[in-house]
Amino acid sequence: MRNILIVGAGRSSAALVRYLLKKSFEEDLNLIIADISVENANSLVMGHENSSVVELDIFNIESRKKLVKNADIVVSMLPARFHLEIAKDCLDFKKNLVTASYISEDLSAMNKDVKEAGLIFMNEIGLDPGIDHMSAMQVIDRIKAQGGKMILFESFTGGLVAPESDNNLWNYKFTWNPRNVVVAGQGGVAKFIQEGKYKYIPYHKLFRRTEFLSIEGYGKFEALANRDSLNYREIYGLQDALTLYRGTIRRIGYSRAWNIFVQLGMTDDSYVMEGSEKMSYRDFTNSFLPYKPHDSVELKLRHYLKIDQDDVIWEKLLELDIFNGDKIVGIKDATPAQILQRILMDSWTLAEDDKDMIVMYHKFGYELNGVKKQIESNMVVLGEDQTYTAMAKTVGLPVAMATLDILNGKIKTPGVQLPISKEVYEPILKELEEYGIQFKEKDVDYLGYNPHNLGV
Amino acid sequence: MRNILIVGAGRSSAALVRYLLKKSFEEDLNLIIADISVENANSLVMGHENSSVVELDIFNIESRKKLVKNADIVVSMLPARFHLEIAKDCLDFKKNLVTASYISEDLSAMNKDVKEAGLIFMNEIGLDPGIDHMSAMQVIDRIKAQGGKMILFESFTGGLVAPESDNNLWNYKFTWNPRNVVVAGQGGVAKFIQEGKYKYIPYHKLFRRTEFLSIEGYGKFEALANRDSLNYREIYGLQDALTLYRGTIRRIGYSRAWNIFVQLGMTDDSYVMEGSEKMSYRDFTNSFLPYKPHDSVELKLRHYLKIDQDDVIWEKLLELDIFNGDKIVGIKDATPAQILQRILMDSWTLAEDDKDMIVMYHKFGYELNGVKKQIESNMVVLGEDQTYTAMAKTVGLPVAMATLDILNGKIKTPGVQLPISKEVYEPILKELEEYGIQFKEKDVDYLGYNPHNLGV
Repeated sequence: MRNILIVGAGRSSAALVRYLLKKSFEEDLNLIIADISVENANSLVMGHENSSVVELDIFNIESRKKLVKNADIVVSMLPARFHLEIAKDCLDFKKNLVTASYISEDLSAMNKDVKEAGLIFMNEIGLDPGIDHMSAMQVIDRIKAQGGKMILFESFTGGLVAPESDNNLWNYKFTWNPRNVVVAGQGGVAKFIQEGKYKYIPYHKLFRRTEFLSIEGYGKFEALANRDSLNYREIYGLQDALTLYRGTIRRIGYSRAWNIFVQLGMTDDSYVMEGSEKMSYRDFTNSFLPYKPHDSVELKLRHYLKIDQDDVIWEKLLELDIFNGDKIVGIKDATPAQILQRILMDSWTLAEDDKDMIVMYHKFGYELNGVKKQIESNMVVLGEDQTYTAMAKTVGLPVAMATLDILNGKIKTPGVQLPISKEVYEPILKELEEYGIQFKEKDVDYLGYNPHNLGV
Repeated sequence: MRNILIVGAGRSSAALVRYLLKKSFEEDLNLIIADISVENANSLVMGHENSSVVELDIFNIESRKKLVKNADIVVSMLPARFHLEIAKDCLDFKKNLVTASYISEDLSAMNKDVKEAGLIFMNEIGLDPGIDHMSAMQVIDRIKAQGGKMILFESFTGGLVAPESDNNLWNYKFTWNPRNVVVAGQGGVAKFIQEGKYKYIPYHKLFRRTEFLSIEGYGKFEALANRDSLNYREIYGLQDALTLYRGTIRRIGYSRAWNIFVQLGMTDDSYVMEGSEKMSYRDFTNSFLPYKPHDSVELKLRHYLKIDQDDVIWEKLLELDIFNGDKIVGIKDATPAQILQRILMDSWTLAEDDKDMIVMYHKFGYELNGVKKQIESNMVVLGEDQTYTAMAKTVGLPVAMATLDILNGKIKTPGVQLPISKEVYEPILKELEEYGIQFKEKDVDYLGYNPHNLGV
């Protein structure tokens, strides 16, 4: 039996554990699930004979080291900030490691030691980051192998509610950490390139600069720019691309309405509001509006942000009950973002039988034999239920597959890495198709952003 | 002879030095001006017999300590971050200290030692902070002495161009550190109270939430909220006031036009723009607009920010030449704020014979014998020339007067302090009147923000 230690039994571990347990007989696997909550861990394996469950406080060095020492490979599904200690243990005991998180600078600094020890520390192998890397690199490598030159790359991902469970005006529910949704886009300017021109969007304009995209069978979506469009330029080998743009997908109309919260200042997470605990939703809204006791909060807001009488934005705000004077926030020393999250959770929490949906969309522009061409590819994954959500599957399955591929020697190259090499992405993307996680690709006319070469 | 050590010979030291030199014969004063630039120091005293000039690098501990040791009192006109070292020297050698800067936490922590040594460390005794504290406390103390209860306090200050030198569409020129003007309002939400309701304005809405105010003989002005309206609540003894608001004064229309820069993202000082050195002003503007080679930068901007064809905002932008494709930024690795500053300095730098103007405006609301009353007071100071600017006078003179009052034992109370006690503000405000720095006060009807007591 080969021992796989999985640290962290959160929501994203469900599909990962199910996959490995299914394979456990033919592949001779034994799973050790370690979590601070034995209950969480138990609910994932439900007494499966090829599994055991351990209570682990990650700060208990002794128990942690003991578990790593006895494992053949370690999977860390903890929040990213806890990976480093596990990684150090893995280096000490010469164990391979798999995570779905971004490679931190500290982890990156271990690369030389990890390589020398002949170990594989595979990271960013969930959905985003993860499937986005693999699916992009597969097409980019193919284009380059044909002699093509990459001139455009755009990539969009969104965690949404499935069409069958989509029953609010925002066409949105929380399918992942709500906090990340509320503060999305903050912390720095969004920077990207279009046709060689650097463009910058400040946070307070981000939700007014969306682009539309269509997916056959699923209709239209909108995308807003991520902060980090240029992060992977070198890693993907796109130094010469004139257009690089990464974004987040929402249903059309979401961003224009969300902009109301941004403009009011409701998404600010940097200060605590006076009297937040006893504040009503209406008080909260009124805090961002001028003091004018003659006028209603409603009319002040409409006037301040110039919302027309018949604008659907208004209905979206009403649906969230932000003018309710009886609903109380009930959180002490809360920031605006925390209060907004509370208000949204009343409306956007997934119901028992709701399903989620993951959408990913890439555009690849390239020049081959003097002709500009474009490939568009997209992936849509629907959740099965509240446990095997589209998010849990698209994050957990690539992690599980990479773990097994490393154990079985299919992935060989040592080092602290992300899944951009053929050795990694090819078998995993192929296997993901068996689980309904696949890309539809089509050739389209190259459009770019300057089809008539104006000003060039 | 009593030795006054003045560290820092910047612009704001001119009026300070002139005052003290004038008094030097009758008061037996000798001024030692220490600065990293002997030239700057010399230009202030011009060989006056009761003065000497020393080259001082503030980080040269030995020379610094020697100078402090030989002084009878020390005035630090350095940037605020350098005060602490001087303050420590003053404590060591038992010397009184005067600065025009905000009391830092580090300085505040020295209060006990300073008191025990019987020393006076007087701070915040320039214009703002300084004259604002003194003029406000004089009225507040008087109202309280009459048995009145403070219910409203608003205070506004602005450094502007004098009407006779006001010849651009913005009615504004740089009369002080341009950088502070460009980044004004950043770094946190603006928070204040109106009629007991806390209100919050995020940065990107700050310049759209101005209030108007009038000053006889000078016309209308606008004021935008400072971040810190509640900072002095306890210090001024205004715990029960229902309205507290502090703001910055501009000429009407400035903020609405400045908002264009905020909306575009041009005031951001948090990141460096690609290729800033060779960028034209037009490129800079275009960086914040969508890539659309079919459309002009002008029309993209008008459409993005919905600027009407006949809106004077447009003329203000043209006046600054932000669409000029030939003018080059010429600063390497510059932030948007640095580039905007460069562009503005082309238009807003004071000409040789331009004069500046300081405007301060207070509103005091109070209840006396069951009747609500209001006092409004304002001060307007005009500059004499480029050396004795209104700013230099209003900052330097209170510092100079406090220095002499401390030397002469008129100010007695020891401790790290700001000028809020009668002992300090009464003689200084009185003497400032001789220099044309005085407040006009009038009783008006109490208006507050809810005159008809709606919803109360």
